[in-house]
Amino acid sequence: MATRIHNFSISLDGFGSGEPQSFETPFGHAGQRLHAWMMATRMWDPVHGSAGMDDAFAQQHDPGIGAEIMGAHKFGPPGWQDDPDWRGWWGEEPPFRTPVFVLTHHAREPLAVGATTFHFLTATPQEALRLATEAAGGQDVRIGGGATVVRDFVAAGLVDHIHLVQVPIVLGRGTQLWDGLEGLEASYDVEVTASPSGVTHLVFSRKPSVTS
Amino acid sequence: MATRIHNFSISLDGFGSGEPQSFETPFGHAGQRLHAWMMATRMWDPVHGSAGMDDAFAQQHDPGIGAEIMGAHKFGPPGWQDDPDWRGWWGEEPPFRTPVFVLTHHAREPLAVGATTFHFLTATPQEALRLATEAAGGQDVRIGGGATVVRDFVAAGLVDHIHLVQVPIVLGRGTQLWDGLEGLEASYDVEVTASPSGVTHLVFSRKPSVTS
Ligand SMILES: NC(=O)c1ccc[n+]([C@@H]2O[C@H](COP(=O)([O-])OP(=O)(O)OC[C@H]3O[C@@H](n4cnc5c(N)ncnc54)[C@H](OP(=O)(O)O)[C@@H]3O)[C@@H](O)[C@H]2O)c1
Ligand SMILES: NC(=O)c1ccc[n+]([C@@H]2O[C@H](COP(=O)([O-])OP(=O)(O)OC[C@H]3O[C@@H](n4cnc5c(N)ncnc54)[C@H](OP(=O)(O)O)[C@@H]3O)[C@@H](O)[C@H]2O)c1
Repeated sequence: MATRIHNFSISLDGFGSGEPQSFETPFGHAGQRLHAWMMATRMWDPVHGSAGMDDAFAQQHDPGIGAEIMGAHKFGPPGWQDDPDWRGWWGEEPPFRTPVFVLTHHAREPLAVGATTFHFLTATPQEALRLATEAAGGQDVRIGGGATVVRDFVAAGLVDHIHLVQVPIVLGRGTQLWDGLEGLEASYDVEVTASPSGVTHLVFSRKPSVTS
Repeated sequence: MATRIHNFSISLDGFGSGEPQSFETPFGHAGQRLHAWMMATRMWDPVHGSAGMDDAFAQQHDPGIGAEIMGAHKFGPPGWQDDPDWRGWWGEEPPFRTPVFVLTHHAREPLAVGATTFHFLTATPQEALRLATEAAGGQDVRIGGGATVVRDFVAAGLVDHIHLVQVPIVLGRGTQLWDGLEGLEASYDVEVTASPSGVTHLVFSRKPSVTS
């Protein structure tokens, strides 16, 4: 059972979201630029999307995943914690279809939406991963973002596989992925592949010899 | 006549040098990791170096260049300005072999070393580029770094061609390239190529339609 990150998109300067985040602008001034590459693939749009490298990477997002852990700011815009009716961005059939653990300092009762159940908790990364691993029933756990949560789990040495997608834009501000990750390369093999679409795929695979 | 940057090496998190810079550690804790890719090419080591993509990019550094502009911290370690005998890092035949303009708040008399003459000046990027362009005798001007000077010239809209080399390490601290460059992609076409060596070449070419 592994802990994996997929399709996490960053700007050249390492931002996983622009600012300010709001209901109207979930990614702040980044708009859809961080994810346009994914929306252009078959994974997102089976009819008009492209096959090829971006699609192959994008499609790794779901298979073998039994639970996701996400941050409070992925689940909703600032202020969602004060709205008892907020059910996430994803409508009545969220694409997760597994238990999802939402890290937040404003925990509430579990929420079932379609085939997904959201659990809200205040916990260390280690505790959250233990609960998610239990819930995953023998499958892998995905760390779903945003940058703050990715950074915390990677810094804690809990992540086996990290797929980042570097988009050739300079955002200048937002939530930063790299802070606190000095020396990351010591624990991972890194493979970098430039896609014909203009984005670059970076895959970090934990070195077999390193235990943490 | 164009203004160009070549072989400017950065970590995944955008640092062009580690810290602290000193006589013993010109690149701080980065050591030689930012430039190992270049030292492995024929451009650096004609006998044992590799040919191929990294060498092809590296070799673009000199042809057609008539002058370089560099920052005070590329010319010497902290404190060199107080040492009247400091002649740069490069021994008695520096590899530039053109006029080199060293931006510093501690100007001194020009210094000829081998086929290179160093000129020391306090000036705006625009003024420095005007002087270097004059001295380049119809050839191009290279902005030689470090990150502070690259950033200032790019932010001022003075650079036509930017070749960056992203090395798969996370430095965590040092001098940062991306600060202040938000929206850079609006003015440049970007081409990204991953090298079999593990580094990634990013080439920014100024869009023909953009004048600044
Ligand atoms: N680039 C991508 O591929 C990608 C992927 C997913 C999401 N996103 C975007 O990224 C942005 C969100 O990222 P972000 O970095 O701002 O925030 P985030 O990682 O989604 O959430 C961080 C927040 O989660 C809560 N939290 C985190 N760890 C916790 C813990 N151990 N215990 C309790 N609460 C904890 C805290 O919120 P509270 O204290 O307020 O509860 C914290 O401020 C959104 O714009 C989202 O759309 C981007
Ligand atoms: N990654 C690469 O490919 C690469 C390439 C070249 C160099 N480097 C490394 O980068 C590091 C140096 O980079 P850095 O960003 O710290 O410094 P830098 O860009 O070399 O120099 C910055 C300094 O130059 C002076 N300066 C800059 N603009 C000026 C202006 N308009 N007028 C007057 N003075 C001006 C100021 O120094 P004062 O006020 O002190 O005079 C300023 O602090 C070194 O470690 C070097 O070895 C890396």
